[in-house]
Amino acid sequence: MPASIHIKVINGNTFQPMTQGINESAQAACFPGTEIVTTQPQAGPESIESYYDEYLAIPGILEEIILSQDTFDAFVIACWGDPGVEAARELTTKPVIGIAEASMYVANMLAARWGIVTTQHRTLNMITQTIHKTGFSHRCVSIRTTGIPVVETETARQATLEGLEAIGRLAIAEDKVEALCLGCAGMSGLDHELEKRLGIPIIDSVAAAVKMAEALVSLHKQTSKALTYQLPSPKPILGFPNHMQPVNFQR
Amino acid sequence: MPASIHIKVINGNTFQPMTQGINESAQAACFPGTEIVTTQPQAGPESIESYYDEYLAIPGILEEIILSQDTFDAFVIACWGDPGVEAARELTTKPVIGIAEASMYVANMLAARWGIVTTQHRTLNMITQTIHKTGFSHRCVSIRTTGIPVVETETARQATLEGLEAIGRLAIAEDKVEALCLGCAGMSGLDHELEKRLGIPIIDSVAAAVKMAEALVSLHKQTSKALTYQLPSPKPILGFPNHMQPVNFQR
Amino acid sequence: MPASIHIKVINGNTFQPMTQGINESAQAACFPGTEIVTTQPQAGPESIESYYDEYLAIPGILEEIILSQDTFDAFVIACWGDPGVEAARELTTKPVIGIAEASMYVANMLAARWGIVTTQHRTLNMITQTIHKTGFSHRCVSIRTTGIPVVETETARQATLEGLEAIGRLAIAEDKVEALCLGCAGMSGLDHELEKRLGIPIIDSVAAAVKMAEALVSLHKQTSKALTYQLPSPKPILGFPNHMQPVNFQR
Amino acid sequence: MPASIHIKVINGNTFQPMTQGINESAQAACFPGTEIVTTQPQAGPESIESYYDEYLAIPGILEEIILSQDTFDAFVIACWGDPGVEAARELTTKPVIGIAEASMYVANMLAARWGIVTTQHRTLNMITQTIHKTGFSHRCVSIRTTGIPVVETETARQATLEGLEAIGRLAIAEDKVEALCLGCAGMSGLDHELEKRLGIPIIDSVAAAVKMAEALVSLHKQTSKALTYQLPSPKPILGFPNHMQPVNFQR
Amino acid sequence: MPASIHIKVINGNTFQPMTQGINESAQAACFPGTEIVTTQPQAGPESIESYYDEYLAIPGILEEIILSQDTFDAFVIACWGDPGVEAARELTTKPVIGIAEASMYVANMLAARWGIVTTQHRTLNMITQTIHKTGFSHRCVSIRTTGIPVVETETARQATLEGLEAIGRLAIAEDKVEALCLGCAGMSGLDHELEKRLGIPIIDSVAAAVKMAEALVSLHKQTSKALTYQLPSPKPILGFPNHMQPVNFQR
Amino acid sequence: MPASIHIKVINGNTFQPMTQGINESAQAACFPGTEIVTTQPQAGPESIESYYDEYLAIPGILEEIILSQDTFDAFVIACWGDPGVEAARELTTKPVIGIAEASMYVANMLAARWGIVTTQHRTLNMITQTIHKTGFSHRCVSIRTTGIPVVETETARQATLEGLEAIGRLAIAEDKVEALCLGCAGMSGLDHELEKRLGIPIIDSVAAAVKMAEALVSLHKQTSKALTYQLPSPKPILGFPNHMQPVNFQR
Repeated sequence: MPASIHIKVINGNTFQPMTQGINESAQAACFPGTEIVTTQPQAGPESIESYYDEYLAIPGILEEIILSQDTFDAFVIACWGDPGVEAARELTTKPVIGIAEASMYVANMLAARWGIVTTQHRTLNMITQTIHKTGFSHRCVSIRTTGIPVVETETARQATLEGLEAIGRLAIAEDKVEALCLGCAGMSGLDHELEKRLGIPIIDSVAAAVKMAEALVSLHKQTSKALTYQLPSPKPILGFPNHMQPVNFQR
Repeated sequence: MPASIHIKVINGNTFQPMTQGINESAQAACFPGTEIVTTQPQAGPESIESYYDEYLAIPGILEEIILSQDTFDAFVIACWGDPGVEAARELTTKPVIGIAEASMYVANMLAARWGIVTTQHRTLNMITQTIHKTGFSHRCVSIRTTGIPVVETETARQATLEGLEAIGRLAIAEDKVEALCLGCAGMSGLDHELEKRLGIPIIDSVAAAVKMAEALVSLHKQTSKALTYQLPSPKPILGFPNHMQPVNFQR
Repeated sequence: MPASIHIKVINGNTFQPMTQGINESAQAACFPGTEIVTTQPQAGPESIESYYDEYLAIPGILEEIILSQDTFDAFVIACWGDPGVEAARELTTKPVIGIAEASMYVANMLAARWGIVTTQHRTLNMITQTIHKTGFSHRCVSIRTTGIPVVETETARQATLEGLEAIGRLAIAEDKVEALCLGCAGMSGLDHELEKRLGIPIIDSVAAAVKMAEALVSLHKQTSKALTYQLPSPKPILGFPNHMQPVNFQR
Repeated sequence: MPASIHIKVINGNTFQPMTQGINESAQAACFPGTEIVTTQPQAGPESIESYYDEYLAIPGILEEIILSQDTFDAFVIACWGDPGVEAARELTTKPVIGIAEASMYVANMLAARWGIVTTQHRTLNMITQTIHKTGFSHRCVSIRTTGIPVVETETARQATLEGLEAIGRLAIAEDKVEALCLGCAGMSGLDHELEKRLGIPIIDSVAAAVKMAEALVSLHKQTSKALTYQLPSPKPILGFPNHMQPVNFQR
Repeated sequence: MPASIHIKVINGNTFQPMTQGINESAQAACFPGTEIVTTQPQAGPESIESYYDEYLAIPGILEEIILSQDTFDAFVIACWGDPGVEAARELTTKPVIGIAEASMYVANMLAARWGIVTTQHRTLNMITQTIHKTGFSHRCVSIRTTGIPVVETETARQATLEGLEAIGRLAIAEDKVEALCLGCAGMSGLDHELEKRLGIPIIDSVAAAVKMAEALVSLHKQTSKALTYQLPSPKPILGFPNHMQPVNFQR
Repeated sequence: MPASIHIKVINGNTFQPMTQGINESAQAACFPGTEIVTTQPQAGPESIESYYDEYLAIPGILEEIILSQDTFDAFVIACWGDPGVEAARELTTKPVIGIAEASMYVANMLAARWGIVTTQHRTLNMITQTIHKTGFSHRCVSIRTTGIPVVETETARQATLEGLEAIGRLAIAEDKVEALCLGCAGMSGLDHELEKRLGIPIIDSVAAAVKMAEALVSLHKQTSKALTYQLPSPKPILGFPNHMQPVNFQR
């Protein structure tokens, strides 16, 4: 068991209030011996609501891992969708956990039928693909969206809560869900109030991921370097700084 | 965060040496603030290698939960196959974690392609069903068996290790796995040596489950009582003691 | 062709009126040359509506097979969910048929799209898993529940009929089913009246299973002992009587 | 229960020796009270080994049903692939059973893992589609072919047997099958010898279908006319005789 | 690149007005250098709305390919359901394209979530099977039917349009489709008006197939003769003319 | 039909020789009236062989689309894996086609069983995910890799050819494929020689995508803007130039 576990939580977007909200959830969730630093990428969109947003966010997320590999024991990517998580695993032997997958593992241990509630309607396909990537296509029975933008999960907290309650009630009544994952890092902290209102477990995905990170570090487990997640091979990558060139990666 | 987390780890069978081995792995895996008690059912088979074994083990496993609901914060069912885990979740609001599911969550965070190595050849179908129940039919790419009985995972430690190494090499070469779950509680503790020999992450399923239990307790999450995992309704159950009668369950 | 076919039909629960109802359906369904004995376990719950009920019913169901192997040519497990059917197949070379699977085979021969109607809402996940275990996840298009307890399928016959009619109409209108399986042994005998009301084939699952048992016996087929369904290996099973110890099984 | 059950077994092809072989298996499998007539279409290919063969066989198969609806209680389509079975179900309320589906139901009751052995290599995709149509894509674990033409299953009986034994051994060793369906009506009658050689249940698909037909008739079940299998609507069909015109179908 | 591409478009039914409608769509869709001939089988039903219709249409469709193999570079089967397409591919090395598959490829390139709108309610299962055969079971999220017969897609054009608009609106609102394939060749030409009304891409399946045919010819690609689509082996086929006997096929 | 079709083919990487090779294949495949411009991103990796490479390539690929929306009728993303294709579809109403999906559509029209051959062993999981994204998880029966880096598909042409031939033979013999897609844009142009050696259709993925682009443009079809592929909403994206800011996108 390490004396102390250091986890870097990386907000997927560059919206500072969300970084702060994520940090609060992460700090509240960790064990006493865990030290958490929450950051946001230096480049990337203010919120991730489209594939375009997501793909422009990923290089900045990956840079956050490259820049502080030696300092941390594990990394959390705090955007439901787990943007870039496969690439992040290539970059380091330290565990990298996405909040989407973490929330689904937790839901799967608490309920036989569970679902996802999230933000914009347009993310339906992104959510579907994230569930498949994690492996739970046959377990998740509901995906519902409020239509409220990501940024407003921080700035219009009350409306977000009410939107989530409304779709949560539909998910229970029509899809027979028994637990729900909050499908956006900006929703962190709303789980307790929603749980009261809906009467079923509501998973704070950031908190879930912090616990998974602590678990993997404590188990001394490292990302497999056998095949898929090998370090990227050295080659020039035009337009990116030196520290992002694979030739400079520590081998 | 609770001052201290109390977890009951329940060996699925009645083979005392395995209970002891499981206890060692569980104690080694937990955080300092966690207290673990490892037990075995008062009734049931010496090992679980068939459906018959499994179904005769489950009432005893469930009794272990009924008997000590108030004393513990979470329960781990330490038999790969997660026997009775759905029923256990009906009996308590405390989280119940199976070692099979826990090991698969960990593998899924460490590797893109992973598999299971286990004991008797005849368990192939049981393993397949466990993977489906957990939800990972589309993620697990290999199931291989040594043909060595469960009891010998404790009594013929060296042969078990060599058997696992042999099928592990096949899983890597032919199925392209990048991590492996040890598919039997009796294999607990062999992960480090196997990891050295095979060069990929090997998941000790008992250790993984302990970490998941700590995570869920720390998150203050409880099993959903919305539908599937409601408390069993009161009705006579012939041939079982008073404390196992639903009419006596605390409601 | 055997001179006469002897089938033991085992009610999964210990509710005597249901045993009687099952017997009536079974006797009505069999060929003249078939002799049917319907029993119920000596231990187990009054009805099976939860995983807990199911797992406490299974040892008693298996005992019914162990006790009369030499006397019967085939066994039917008369509880939709086919509790313990895999273990039962390990115990004997005689065919063992679950009423769930039998009803689905019949539905599959009569209709392109079919579904299941059953009792308590909470059984939704159990039903889903039974369908998957049998192999029909891609064929069954509807699962609907009345919310009426199992015992009342016998004691409140009229309410059960009306509940089934109501969800049957929804299954036809919304899920486009063309046939329905009665998802509880207690519903046996309601098929004719429901068929009149709904205008589509309604499968009495007990009757279906009796026909499958006759078919397999007549084909001289035995359960495969090649791998999964081998006889359980000899080992002590604490808390169970001598006749349930594998060491005493005839090999 | 009908006084006597009349079943028409329709060989899918026009090879008389195969019609005779099918008849022998069917007669041997039926209950004493069952009367079986085995026929072959008046038009169609000598054997079905390609999609072309299959599609040219189907009109003749359907004609066999149209011509004798009033005389029989059920129909069996005796070609593994169940050619035209959906259309046959449109034409009559009497049960229509394909030998492929029947064999798979039987295998599914006898073994946890099973497979298909059949004739020409080129039929691999046809077999795969038949398994999916029936619903067993997740249960069938092996498809293997001898490369021997259909006609030779009758004319080169010994070579067929040896070819089946060889691929059967591979299916057991490599695919871990525990039972096998004979994937061609021409293989009927080889099940006993193969069962002796391979030591696992071998399903004679024709025999299996006869038992299913008896079962459905005895259950008084009829094909659903709710949606998919409604009678074809009246419309001119150029180039086909009067009795095949839907306008002349009894409504 | 061939100087000119010759495509034979085969209406699946024998309804002349539909052949004409198909021809108009096909002519409108092709490149200037493409020459299209649209025909209909000499035998077969006036419309394809049941499996019976489909199977009686297929021999006539296949004859259209046999009769003009040397004259054309590719064939289009213009019936959503792609009747006989696998057999057609056995008969020729020239590409054969079904309009169902072509429309789904186009939809898949334009939208993340798409569906099918078509004619009679009873075709629901046929449509489902066509989607599976093509491979898109996990991509198509909606199948809806107007209940209007195929023939009326030509004779009651306005009612068809309104029916399609109505179910299209439901598909958008309830199933969240972003594009729709017109699931009947008779609907060809309605795509532009429907696109205006519904505001999402509507795929004219005939037009889509013509483009796929041009693409494959231009790529000089031929149907694989490696296994499934080998030429049918020589054997007598009773009741069919000489030119349909495999012994007379050019090898 | 547009007077002339303008297609921009975007090499996914920044390796100029590959851009040139892609251009040759694209020019050879297009119709006379089509004008093709092949480019490569201004930023990004020399080759795409890892998730890291892929995610660092995508912003540059998207920029290529943003920069020339008005000039082209369609875009092809010339990297097997279709990097960024969903985001590209958000950016424009013009059709965007990935070479992976295009090659699979073509394979699916030519063969019942097909597979993918590609470069580095580590890409196995990426390939698997691409197949799922396109929808063909149930159709593609083989994925094999040469182990040869992407760059060498251009610089070591002969070794690449031999590597492909070797794994192609295995795919035919062991996986029973009947056609193969070249799973890397660098392999473009090797299809004819491989086709000769292996005797089955080999799909040049770049050529296939050009034909799909021509088809969609000719059909006047545009990407659906109904839900998933709506234009990204205006929001600041740190670290990206003005022309990549959604606020500047033409609405």
